[in-house]
Amino acid sequence: MKEIVKKMLKERGVTIEDMANLVYELQKDYADISIETAIFNIEKVLSKREVQNAILTGIQLDILAEKNLLKEPLLSMIKKDEPLYGIDEILALSITNVYGSIGFTNYGYIDKMKFGIIGKLDKLGKTTDRVNTFLDDLVGGIVAAACARITHSNKE
Amino acid sequence: MKEIVKKMLKERGVTIEDMANLVYELQKDYADISIETAIFNIEKVLSKREVQNAILTGIQLDILAEKNLLKEPLLSMIKKDEPLYGIDEILALSITNVYGSIGFTNYGYIDKMKFGIIGKLDKLGKTTDRVNTFLDDLVGGIVAAACARITHSNKE
Amino acid sequence: MKEIVKKMLKERGVTIEDMANLVYELQKDYADISIETAIFNIEKVLSKREVQNAILTGIQLDILAEKNLLKEPLLSMIKKDEPLYGIDEILALSITNVYGSIGFTNYGYIDKMKFGIIGKLDKLGKTTDRVNTFLDDLVGGIVAAACARITHSNKE
Amino acid sequence: MKEIVKKMLKERGVTIEDMANLVYELQKDYADISIETAIFNIEKVLSKREVQNAILTGIQLDILAEKNLLKEPLLSMIKKDEPLYGIDEILALSITNVYGSIGFTNYGYIDKMKFGIIGKLDKLGKTTDRVNTFLDDLVGGIVAAACARITHSNKE
Ligand SMILES: [Ca+2]
Ligand SMILES: [Ca+2]
Ligand SMILES: [Ca+2]
Ligand SMILES: [Ca+2]
Repeated sequence: MKEIVKKMLKERGVTIEDMANLVYELQKDYADISIETAIFNIEKVLSKREVQNAILTGIQLDILAEKNLLKEPLLSMIKKDEPLYGIDEILALSITNVYGSIGFTNYGYIDKMKFGIIGKLDKLGKTTDRVNTFLDDLVGGIVAAACARITHSNKE
Repeated sequence: MKEIVKKMLKERGVTIEDMANLVYELQKDYADISIETAIFNIEKVLSKREVQNAILTGIQLDILAEKNLLKEPLLSMIKKDEPLYGIDEILALSITNVYGSIGFTNYGYIDKMKFGIIGKLDKLGKTTDRVNTFLDDLVGGIVAAACARITHSNKE
Repeated sequence: MKEIVKKMLKERGVTIEDMANLVYELQKDYADISIETAIFNIEKVLSKREVQNAILTGIQLDILAEKNLLKEPLLSMIKKDEPLYGIDEILALSITNVYGSIGFTNYGYIDKMKFGIIGKLDKLGKTTDRVNTFLDDLVGGIVAAACARITHSNKE
Repeated sequence: MKEIVKKMLKERGVTIEDMANLVYELQKDYADISIETAIFNIEKVLSKREVQNAILTGIQLDILAEKNLLKEPLLSMIKKDEPLYGIDEILALSITNVYGSIGFTNYGYIDKMKFGIIGKLDKLGKTTDRVNTFLDDLVGGIVAAACARITHSNKE
């Protein structure tokens, strides 16, 4: 299942390295961390079943919206990344939750600052036919969970 | 939006009355409640935007699974109501959350006991081509939220 | 930390065996399970840092309420297990969350049915000076998390 | 209850205006907003029972930690604002949840950036005997919920 999820992320334009870079940038001031450690922790997050379920479901909804295969009014809400539609945030939170509440604030911060790959996904979603309404939040959730995992590893 | 959601629930076999009956059964020993009060509270729950988003998304996924329009392995997980797939519970919880944490336990109880309409949906999901993987949890979430709303109204 | 948490639970009247019995009763119809497996899974849940934090915080609030060391109106809300006070449910959910959303429904079910040790705690809370407002939910959360862990182990 | 909560916040150094200023700064680029609107929305958030419960519980734990009235190891975790202790984030999230998942990202952003009153609380917590481990997250949650409420009001 993990390989399917990694392939799906890649097809939507997100590599393990993209996510590891974000983890590295967010953690370098707090922990003695290398890109390899960041990659290792992203891999660990992606091996969790709850995380896989959220990614499979969210990316599927993005793809179906892109192909106009959802019914209205859901279709327009997802295509426009409507501010009152929060199911993308809910799925992201279910990812972050995997290593407990300490990942919440990282997720929110990443989402607002639109660093690295997240800014790129957001821009693609706004300027092309690509729908990334779920994907940017999923990636933010994965990165936040990896940061939480690193904090747990270092402190325990 | 609320009318669209009510129509969608009805098309999937769930009426306001079905849900109000569950609310009445769950609350009659704790509160002085009529079917009318139960209906009123279900209507209030359905007018919340978060609730509408969860219903639109969940029922859409059930319908797409029925039509085999989801990609594997997501398709099989939703069609079989796979125990390790918990996105349906997550959407239900986002509904229950609308009136705070006091609705959580009602949701779990309803879901396990499979009272009334929930038992009916579950049976249809298991014995026919109908996919109700999300719907039964959504209905449980709506009923639990209505119960929480009644508790808030009576105590405050 | 885990040993402190186990000691604290025991001082409040809850043993690993009490919780394992509940896990066994809930799972015996779904899985080939022994009391030893149930104990093993309870131990795994108790080794999670998020779980320990919730237990330490919840039991501390119960004890402080018992000794009248909380300020009003919080004191009365916790002493009376006031229905609109849901922080106990929130802590329980943070425990259940450790193995994902599939534990939610078990928690709600356990909480309502008041099986075994949970019924005993509830009765003590209602008929003696003992305050178990948090403890019954914490125990329900631990048991539900252990059941979710067993489901994950069996299916993956 | 609301007046008690407002008085408690004030005694811990947080006024409605402090929180309204944060709301204004966060929303001014997205909405036509005045300080009066910000105050109105903070007041609305504070009138929710779930929010009041979280504030009463969190501030109580800060005060008890300040007075060394909690047992170890909980006492040290709260006094030091230990990174692996996430119950403060959990209470903040229960506040933000009141207007749905759209407030999550604002909460994380506010918490990381330590704007205005939050930076002040954080500094006091780190440089004096004052314990603000819960308070900074509670305030971040209240502000994020008020922002979510404004978004709902403007779009619906
Ligand atoms: Ca999004
Ligand atoms: Ca289901
Ligand atoms: Ca309780
Ligand atoms: Ca804090």
